[in-house]
Amino acid sequence: MSRIVIALGGNALGNSPEEQRKKINEAAASLVGLISQGHEIIISHGNGPQVGMIQKGLNLAAEKDSSFARFALPECTAMSQGYIGYHLQQGILRELTRQKMGWHVATIVTQMEVAANDPAFKDPTKPIGGFYSAKQARELMAEDPHLVMKADSGRGYRQMVASPKPIDIVEKDSILNLLDNEFIVIACGGGGIPVIKNQDGCYEGVPAVIDKDFASAKLAELVEADYFFILTAVERVAIHFGEPDQEDLTELTAAQAEALAKEGHFAPGSMLPKVEAAISFAKKRPEGKAVIASLEKAPLAISGESGTTIFH
Amino acid sequence: MSRIVIALGGNALGNSPEEQRKKINEAAASLVGLISQGHEIIISHGNGPQVGMIQKGLNLAAEKDSSFARFALPECTAMSQGYIGYHLQQGILRELTRQKMGWHVATIVTQMEVAANDPAFKDPTKPIGGFYSAKQARELMAEDPHLVMKADSGRGYRQMVASPKPIDIVEKDSILNLLDNEFIVIACGGGGIPVIKNQDGCYEGVPAVIDKDFASAKLAELVEADYFFILTAVERVAIHFGEPDQEDLTELTAAQAEALAKEGHFAPGSMLPKVEAAISFAKKRPEGKAVIASLEKAPLAISGESGTTIFH
Repeated sequence: MSRIVIALGGNALGNSPEEQRKKINEAAASLVGLISQGHEIIISHGNGPQVGMIQKGLNLAAEKDSSFARFALPECTAMSQGYIGYHLQQGILRELTRQKMGWHVATIVTQMEVAANDPAFKDPTKPIGGFYSAKQARELMAEDPHLVMKADSGRGYRQMVASPKPIDIVEKDSILNLLDNEFIVIACGGGGIPVIKNQDGCYEGVPAVIDKDFASAKLAELVEADYFFILTAVERVAIHFGEPDQEDLTELTAAQAEALAKEGHFAPGSMLPKVEAAISFAKKRPEGKAVIASLEKAPLAISGESGTTIFH
Repeated sequence: MSRIVIALGGNALGNSPEEQRKKINEAAASLVGLISQGHEIIISHGNGPQVGMIQKGLNLAAEKDSSFARFALPECTAMSQGYIGYHLQQGILRELTRQKMGWHVATIVTQMEVAANDPAFKDPTKPIGGFYSAKQARELMAEDPHLVMKADSGRGYRQMVASPKPIDIVEKDSILNLLDNEFIVIACGGGGIPVIKNQDGCYEGVPAVIDKDFASAKLAELVEADYFFILTAVERVAIHFGEPDQEDLTELTAAQAEALAKEGHFAPGSMLPKVEAAISFAKKRPEGKAVIASLEKAPLAISGESGTTIFH
């Protein structure tokens, strides 16, 4: 029996509760397929569209009606973990029930520790939420001195937040405890709620977004996973992607993957962070394998029939 | 060592993230006080103001901007569990760190099963969210045939939802597993996400609100708690409340409590559901004791120095 950490993309979950439920129900067959093969799974997920919708929605309400509170990013990430976790646990449980399998599913609300002095805090580069005019941006920044808004892709101003590297999972013991007792665990949603340790050794939330692939790699490392699956829309990592000489990769070492990344084969914000997260896991845990594969073919990827395997 | 289920009121958590954090930090001393006395605790909480804010906020955004999705009550309850659970686990962990105690804290996203044929579904009586005009109410009901809106307290129309009785906790094994391994567990937030079992034996969300005191009584019963604490703003249950002959009660049997409830001593929507939930627990678990007490004096209530104890 292998222990598999599976990272699902937030974009793969759709833009409304109805879409999300449908997509999760479709994904559940693949996920439960891995359980049927005798493995144990732990699922993490992105939350880009969802947390944007929650934060922008609630802040829009606060603009229209002063009786509504404004919500910061850590609280909105916590909400997205509840929302997505609920659909995931219900969808996976539905598939388990259909297949008459007696596993349990649990979502753990997860805080992820980042370093207070992470250089990312000095230069917030990750855009979140909707677009504002220059005037609105100035007003919002005047209201909240911690808010950074920058022009983004010529379409207006957006809030920019730091994307620091994950260093530890606050709830790792809860996750391990459930995992060791044969629960399917959903954790580190949206990369985890970003927290720093203050001078008293206590955690507090920070307005940041942790890349879900890096967070999932940290999760895979901490639970000593045998496999770290990053599931995406394509079946395999490719070089010369989208060109006539595109070449799909089936397996490569971390060193080979690093060399290809340096040559610029992987798109930043898309395949590059996935490859980097896979490399990070392969290096930290030489007995494990990182696999980048499509959601649909995840059960085939474990035997190398689909996906790209990256190992130490 | 006793096992104590603690129900916190949603109103006691304030109306904004800042208020909630402050109130939870204050409550953490009492909660951790029970741990210091050698007990294990499991915390449930209400979410009335919070889920109302989330659902009304997101629906207001959807009205202003059609690119925003509308969110139903089960999804909003799931969000509130993430949001409140995050603050609770962070606040309790802060107090544990201060006192150099090595316990872990985990929030479990919890679904609560209700009966599809619960009579409450035929007559939704629980108002949620904000007020609408008669015209808005008619339009909203035309859009969504499942939506029930009724005139409420002469201030306009509000959505009315069913408040069915809890019958089982879908994630009870996850909760018990963590509890048996000395974790502080936060579960059944907002009474749990209400779900029914469909014809295939699978769970699906229903637009309802489960009373958090009844949900907590069910939780206390299922984890075989020794004590079920319902924490509120007053120190003790009283008869002739607010009158010159007010009499605070220190302990009474479930039968005595039932008789007083029948005589109309407890306000519906306020002390009555708390007393009813306490009676329900005392009857289902004769070895346990239900205690209605103030948040601040919870550590004293365990020895009978504060609070009202209801036993079989």
